[in-house]
Amino acid sequence: MDTTEFRRRGKEMVDLIADYLENIEQRTVYPDVEPGYLRSLIPEEAPEEPDTYEDVVKDIERVIMPGVTHWHSPYFYAYFPTANSFPAMLADMLSGAIGCIGFSWGTASEATLVALLAARCRAVRMILASDPQRPETGITSKLVAYSSDQAHCSVERAGMIAGVRMKKIPTEQSDKYAVQGETLRRMIQEDKAAGLIPFYFCATLGTTPSCAFDHITELGPICNAEKIWMHIDAAYAGSSFICPEFRPLLNGIEFADSFNFNAHKWLLVNFDCSTMWVKKRSDLIGAFEMDPLYLKHDHQESGRYFCTDNSLFRSLKMWFVFRIYGLKGLQDYIRKHVELAKEFESLVRADQRFEISADVVLGLVCFRLKGSNEVNETLLKRINNGRKIHLVPCLLSGQFVLRFALCARTTESRHIREAWQLITQLAEEVMQELPH
Amino acid sequence: MDTTEFRRRGKEMVDLIADYLENIEQRTVYPDVEPGYLRSLIPEEAPEEPDTYEDVVKDIERVIMPGVTHWHSPYFYAYFPTANSFPAMLADMLSGAIGCIGFSWGTASEATLVALLAARCRAVRMILASDPQRPETGITSKLVAYSSDQAHCSVERAGMIAGVRMKKIPTEQSDKYAVQGETLRRMIQEDKAAGLIPFYFCATLGTTPSCAFDHITELGPICNAEKIWMHIDAAYAGSSFICPEFRPLLNGIEFADSFNFNAHKWLLVNFDCSTMWVKKRSDLIGAFEMDPLYLKHDHQESGRYFCTDNSLFRSLKMWFVFRIYGLKGLQDYIRKHVELAKEFESLVRADQRFEISADVVLGLVCFRLKGSNEVNETLLKRINNGRKIHLVPCLLSGQFVLRFALCARTTESRHIREAWQLITQLAEEVMQELPH
Repeated sequence: MDTTEFRRRGKEMVDLIADYLENIEQRTVYPDVEPGYLRSLIPEEAPEEPDTYEDVVKDIERVIMPGVTHWHSPYFYAYFPTANSFPAMLADMLSGAIGCIGFSWGTASEATLVALLAARCRAVRMILASDPQRPETGITSKLVAYSSDQAHCSVERAGMIAGVRMKKIPTEQSDKYAVQGETLRRMIQEDKAAGLIPFYFCATLGTTPSCAFDHITELGPICNAEKIWMHIDAAYAGSSFICPEFRPLLNGIEFADSFNFNAHKWLLVNFDCSTMWVKKRSDLIGAFEMDPLYLKHDHQESGRYFCTDNSLFRSLKMWFVFRIYGLKGLQDYIRKHVELAKEFESLVRADQRFEISADVVLGLVCFRLKGSNEVNETLLKRINNGRKIHLVPCLLSGQFVLRFALCARTTESRHIREAWQLITQLAEEVMQELPH
Repeated sequence: MDTTEFRRRGKEMVDLIADYLENIEQRTVYPDVEPGYLRSLIPEEAPEEPDTYEDVVKDIERVIMPGVTHWHSPYFYAYFPTANSFPAMLADMLSGAIGCIGFSWGTASEATLVALLAARCRAVRMILASDPQRPETGITSKLVAYSSDQAHCSVERAGMIAGVRMKKIPTEQSDKYAVQGETLRRMIQEDKAAGLIPFYFCATLGTTPSCAFDHITELGPICNAEKIWMHIDAAYAGSSFICPEFRPLLNGIEFADSFNFNAHKWLLVNFDCSTMWVKKRSDLIGAFEMDPLYLKHDHQESGRYFCTDNSLFRSLKMWFVFRIYGLKGLQDYIRKHVELAKEFESLVRADQRFEISADVVLGLVCFRLKGSNEVNETLLKRINNGRKIHLVPCLLSGQFVLRFALCARTTESRHIREAWQLITQLAEEVMQELPH
């Protein structure tokens, strides 16, 4: 779908919405479906080839509407209101298009925290089962969680929120910044010897600094043997696993207790859209169970009904995207970004003044001027002050490194080359001014 | 703005978005503004009278765009991608219109948790300041938080997540289900005598079951004297405080450490939009500080830059709504709901078989058939199975009560009367079948 088609479809959608709201009181306010009703109405898998937009729109009435509670019907008097107004909808359309990310709290961060809390609950219950007299607060104070020193800062924050120790596992450039099984094993043994209780490990597939992949084939069995919850944060890289050639990066996933990736990063679904998978449902539900009368419903025990309601509403955009692009369209998109990253990598490698700082596996190129951190910091400052292109840095083994991440859906080879030309031009200026 | 105007404005917005994305590479990718640049561009207060839609649209380029980082520009290579595609935007327009609420986690719940975590951090720091040798885990295990037995279930869950004791303060029908100062004072004294450390109280203005208001003029000074963080959850009722006649319900707010309401409940801003105010910024920021290189920026110390970026993006819909309705339009909307609630209340009071179960202060009417819980449970089941209207129940002093909450923007007197007719008709059936 290009801009021209979007203009047409967008206007049709505006009419569809206006029609829906004008006639909402003629709809049954509360859905008459059983949990799982969707299963027979939609295919098991996302389409290989794109669906037509007309088919998707037809399915709104066939598939979606039967499961919707119409909160904006004048026959809805439950809970409290949830607002709805035309100006707010117009503004949201614009927000969706601008699609900035606010940083105070991202969605993979929430998955990390939720997994940590579920793990804490599971650990406390396991210990109480074998030693019922032990005070619960005494257990929590002994718990210890682990993550890579390359993990996202939200992992550390999750530890602070849950009030448990979080230890960073050191990584090395020679190991491509991946956590090694041997290192984790040693830390666990030392902590157990000191009377601590290891209970959670957050592995990263595709770290933020350099897109490094922890060795989960090695780490998973260690966690499983020690009854440590292994959560996998694949916030960025997760989308690439739809391509068979990148699937081996996911080897070892069978050892994980939970897994998360952000479809709003690299799968063409606008912010926010973060998906979390948990091996054992009850581990998660048991940790957060609440039971007030105003939230009771007929399908309480299955725990699925509200999930359906929620996912119908929040995941409409995934459904539209998967169908309109098809698996092939999404794979093409991922592959194009990876190719452009490789193209940028070869531009960097062809220039003797620069070096590549980490393997280029997906759409991220970590590079720097051979020389001091100062010269690289100055270069980055010049680049961003020019406001033509925008990059952020990272630290790898104490070195200040520039991250060139493929981001926009519309990036083409010419943008990459233009960016490189700008970078080399500014590098020349900086190198003339500063010792390096 | 009615449906007819929305059809026109929506189509204009589709073109505006298409134009924006078609020409995005001509924009400066990274904004050249200082924190606070917005302050001089927008008025101090929301407009009393509505602005015109044309003025709002003009201000997108004048006010908003200068502060935007264009994440979808092909010159953006920072962080990782955030997705953007036309099908996802179309689906989001539809999601916004359907506007269901998924229940697994609401936004006022997050504010309650965030305040609790900040309070925990503040309490631990205060104690460590006077007793540096005391082990931190020993402090946490002594902390105790409080909330009303009428508070939302998410308050209890926040306690579970933070790993602290959360005690429910009993309320009475004779006190209109409000927490009394005397009760809180007594619990605090008992807990301190038992060696515990009271540190957090979540007051509710407008509880979920009956829209009860805790006496914060009494409770606030107690909390302040005891250095207990007082958080105020006004998720639903908060919107009503824009009307002077409801403002007295907010008396005592000066004692609060934090305050939250959901504009997505009753202020015409589509889900999700929850606002949180904190008395002392540093209490909140200090509790969650993280400092990785890839999130560093020039205005780090002010801590405001990302907030601006975030609020520009997420609060566009508040800005549209405040301007297009004006304060007056929003007040009219709140008052209309309250009037409709009063109308429903008088219908109930005029029928001797029914009783009102709690004061009708805003847009919620709690009522029941005089008689057993069983007869009321059966009545509610019949109502919801009919699928013409939708209500949820609550428990008040052991009694099963029906909650009639004014929700839809389009509800008129005729809908109320139609609903009441249906309820009385079903009540008649139920009373004939069951002893009451």
